[in-house]
Amino acid sequence: MNKFIRIDMTSLGVKIEETPEKYAGLGGRALTSSFVADEVKPTCHALGKNNKLIFAPGLLSGTSAPNSGRISVGAKSPLTGTIKESNSGGSFSQKMARMGIKALVIEGMPANDKFYVININMNSVTIDEAPPEILGGTGNYKAIEILSAKYGEKVGIAIAGPAGEYRLPTANISFKDPEGNIRSAGRGGLGAVMGSKKIKAIVIDDTGAGQVPIADLEKFRAASKVFAQALMSHPVSGQGLATYGTDVLINILNEAGGLPSYNFTAGRIDHNDNISGETLNATITDRGGDGKVSHGCHPGCIIKCSQWYPDKEGKYITSGFEYETIWALGADSGIKDLDDIAYIDRAMDDIGVDSIEIAVAVATAMDGGLLTWGDGKAVLDAVKQIAIPTPLGRILGGGTAVVGKVCGLYRVPVVKDQGIPAYDPRPVKGIGLTYATGTMGADHTSGYCIAGNILNVGAKIDPLKKDGQIEYARAMQIGTAAVDSTGMCLFVYFGIADSPDGYQALIDMINAQYGLSLTAADVDKLGESVLKTERAFNKAAGFTNAHDRLPEFFEYEPCPPHNVVWDFTPEEIDEVYNF
Amino acid sequence: MNKFIRIDMTSLGVKIEETPEKYAGLGGRALTSSFVADEVKPTCHALGKNNKLIFAPGLLSGTSAPNSGRISVGAKSPLTGTIKESNSGGSFSQKMARMGIKALVIEGMPANDKFYVININMNSVTIDEAPPEILGGTGNYKAIEILSAKYGEKVGIAIAGPAGEYRLPTANISFKDPEGNIRSAGRGGLGAVMGSKKIKAIVIDDTGAGQVPIADLEKFRAASKVFAQALMSHPVSGQGLATYGTDVLINILNEAGGLPSYNFTAGRIDHNDNISGETLNATITDRGGDGKVSHGCHPGCIIKCSQWYPDKEGKYITSGFEYETIWALGADSGIKDLDDIAYIDRAMDDIGVDSIEIAVAVATAMDGGLLTWGDGKAVLDAVKQIAIPTPLGRILGGGTAVVGKVCGLYRVPVVKDQGIPAYDPRPVKGIGLTYATGTMGADHTSGYCIAGNILNVGAKIDPLKKDGQIEYARAMQIGTAAVDSTGMCLFVYFGIADSPDGYQALIDMINAQYGLSLTAADVDKLGESVLKTERAFNKAAGFTNAHDRLPEFFEYEPCPPHNVVWDFTPEEIDEVYNF
Repeated sequence: MNKFIRIDMTSLGVKIEETPEKYAGLGGRALTSSFVADEVKPTCHALGKNNKLIFAPGLLSGTSAPNSGRISVGAKSPLTGTIKESNSGGSFSQKMARMGIKALVIEGMPANDKFYVININMNSVTIDEAPPEILGGTGNYKAIEILSAKYGEKVGIAIAGPAGEYRLPTANISFKDPEGNIRSAGRGGLGAVMGSKKIKAIVIDDTGAGQVPIADLEKFRAASKVFAQALMSHPVSGQGLATYGTDVLINILNEAGGLPSYNFTAGRIDHNDNISGETLNATITDRGGDGKVSHGCHPGCIIKCSQWYPDKEGKYITSGFEYETIWALGADSGIKDLDDIAYIDRAMDDIGVDSIEIAVAVATAMDGGLLTWGDGKAVLDAVKQIAIPTPLGRILGGGTAVVGKVCGLYRVPVVKDQGIPAYDPRPVKGIGLTYATGTMGADHTSGYCIAGNILNVGAKIDPLKKDGQIEYARAMQIGTAAVDSTGMCLFVYFGIADSPDGYQALIDMINAQYGLSLTAADVDKLGESVLKTERAFNKAAGFTNAHDRLPEFFEYEPCPPHNVVWDFTPEEIDEVYNF
Repeated sequence: MNKFIRIDMTSLGVKIEETPEKYAGLGGRALTSSFVADEVKPTCHALGKNNKLIFAPGLLSGTSAPNSGRISVGAKSPLTGTIKESNSGGSFSQKMARMGIKALVIEGMPANDKFYVININMNSVTIDEAPPEILGGTGNYKAIEILSAKYGEKVGIAIAGPAGEYRLPTANISFKDPEGNIRSAGRGGLGAVMGSKKIKAIVIDDTGAGQVPIADLEKFRAASKVFAQALMSHPVSGQGLATYGTDVLINILNEAGGLPSYNFTAGRIDHNDNISGETLNATITDRGGDGKVSHGCHPGCIIKCSQWYPDKEGKYITSGFEYETIWALGADSGIKDLDDIAYIDRAMDDIGVDSIEIAVAVATAMDGGLLTWGDGKAVLDAVKQIAIPTPLGRILGGGTAVVGKVCGLYRVPVVKDQGIPAYDPRPVKGIGLTYATGTMGADHTSGYCIAGNILNVGAKIDPLKKDGQIEYARAMQIGTAAVDSTGMCLFVYFGIADSPDGYQALIDMINAQYGLSLTAADVDKLGESVLKTERAFNKAAGFTNAHDRLPEFFEYEPCPPHNVVWDFTPEEIDEVYNF
């Protein structure tokens, strides 16, 4: 895996180089963040010609290691202004890895207004003009169909939706999943960077590619088996997620009083039964669908958390229908009909926007009087306006911070201009530290302290107390940065947090593939190094400790039912990055 | 002058205190910035309950010193996130000074949704409920009429327009001028802070107030006479400004190739004759009006630069019709009809928005395809939508940075999220340093390097070269911070820059009033101290040298006709604040 493809959109030129030596041992987030830190000027405009967009498979991607098919995408974020890595399922990562492509880099910006499709196969890399029928508001579902018909049903596809074409800071990059549906590198607006470079889509065809070379295949297979067992023997990754999807968290967080509701004015709702994972599962079961009730976001996934949600006639509405989206629309915006939420989720996937950012923006817009609490039909209409885009569509497409500005609000749940997701930091204090200090704005996946604060996985820490949270948030961010570099889905945490064998198996797989002898300490070192690289970039871009703060209202608006406020001092928060 | 009035909008309480000793020698910007630095948490939300709004007359306000009637308003800015002082004409400052009020401070935030009017007179300070007929979209012209009828024709009025009620980050605070028209503390969104505290207006009635005490009246009068002569003997302040208004600069900047056009893609236009000061003057003269062709923004002004612009029937459209507004709509947005521009200017005053910020946002919106280049009628309609506000009105009311976000642009002319005004920094390099390093975002008035770069006043520096610009931008910012503390209009610079007698007379007036013996060195020290205070606040709020940069496109998009780029290095820029 040592091809390093550089595409210069200014000259429409392609260069295929050997991977620079310094990136040889890196994959996924470690690679994208190192590259961005090396080659992107921290103070550049994220939508200007000097930003660069990089796609990189993880260290284990393309192998038979379970759940190793995540693709990392990196750039300077147009939403937050920080460095950004966002990862996604789909088959893109595994195809890249099998084709020996360590990274795909997109630089520059064309002088004209045409959009292009990058076409990668074993023989060539070409820059084709984009077919007009996939442009100008065409949804991702339709565009993926057209591209698959043109380039082959089995190609991997990365696509910038209408929002990406319009360079909105909430635009994601979507990936075709094994069933032809949509997965996304959601957060941070990387679709806008792709749009700014006039790349509508990237198709990748690995026909003729061989296997990813494995230094010690026997050892790899043995470790892989132990790893799979660890995943399957944990009740969450082995059963809970497949049955209820991530939406299982609605009732758990509601019970804990940490389900942010009505734009973060409370931590519990009464209509939790309308939107819970249990209801989701029952609805899907009732409606039958076509047997795809739960499935994986990428080939090789054995957890299969993705829920395939059909309408009353059993016809597909959406998949990858996640807790955070359902929370933001159901609890934070008060929409009580799960079908309404499903149609909005589908629209967001189709337009190519981060479903967390848009849904949090919707709740904020409701608080600002721009939309009506709980009116799912109106929200669907408003979200669809992003694809036109109307002024209202542009406001929502601008994200939560923009909504806060144009509505004159102080209750704007963002950190570094990125919307705060589905766990209230007042009654779940650990996650608040992740939001505040994470290198990419508020992001639960950058250090999922819900595990030890709420789920009692890997740790058991009272979510209402500050004790132990700083060390925990630090460790979780370090560990996550390492996992994000392997190509592994974050949910492998359930297989490694409480299972020393599972954790060792993960390290063994890497060692077996690359002929290394890494230890757990090396993994920690990798995580620390990734975070330090990212933080140095942010510092050069103008970020200071003053940006590592939650919005002020958390400090003086108590969150019912526990009626607690956010009470970490600045000094305590700054301890998280003391390593 | 030692009353320090504190109004707590949380409890609706009023406290009248003695001025704290530390503020005794301060006025205007020196006072507002010291106060904000002392009492406002730098990381607070500008629209939250912990921001404070302060009004302070200058050191010389209320006296017979020419042009000393500017009122300073300070707070943390909701537009930029920096500390902010904005000053305005009107009669508010002089009334405060004569009533012995050193400062008026507004703190807290009411729990309910009512708006209030603060009513200040010699007997009392009360918090009245606002009359409903001035709320909810009522324009400032009408509201001032209603308030004058209720509280007396001669009262001073500060008012937050519809934009302030909606807490839009472009909302200004408007002041009734001597003729009942509108002057504004325009930049930085202080009207939104006023709106967040639910203050619709402040009326001040100085009936019964005496004179401002002067320690040495004879010396004061003598100095005042010299100062007036210096102002009147300079061709710009003595004649040019009264005749053509500030719009005289259109032809000057166009000739210099530094008139930013079509969203900063060029520095010269062909239709300069449509919008020049010469045309403005001829139009006003042709249409007659009622003899108020030029007038002052506050009693005691002897420069009288404000142009009173009538329609074809000679009926008032707008006044305070300034170069920067005419530039942004006429050159930067390509609107070729001066009447169109006048009606838009009137609408902006009426709605209570910063006419620079909105007009720059308009040009940016045209670049982003949200409005059509040059379509003045459509712009008037769009601007009026801010008073409703529609989604489009909210976008424009969000300011240039918000427009840039929702249009996905990299060519967004802002520094610290404030729109860059009427002088292109590529061919006029001195002003670029002011934009980049000023403590309040891009603001020509914070260090008007146009004087020495273009007008040859006070200095003569080649605008196309870097030589001497760093020292000059530093000196201009220091001097301006001092002048902004006196209550003096910035145009007194024409009377002091090239006239040692005029400068000495300004210092003599302060000394005569307060019984001091300040020297020119003390004035510089005051200016430096103000800037250091402001910069320390900004640093604590999270600003670093990385924010002291112009937008990146200036570095790689050459500006015709000189085809120059912005070429100061970061290290050179950082030298400006090396004092």
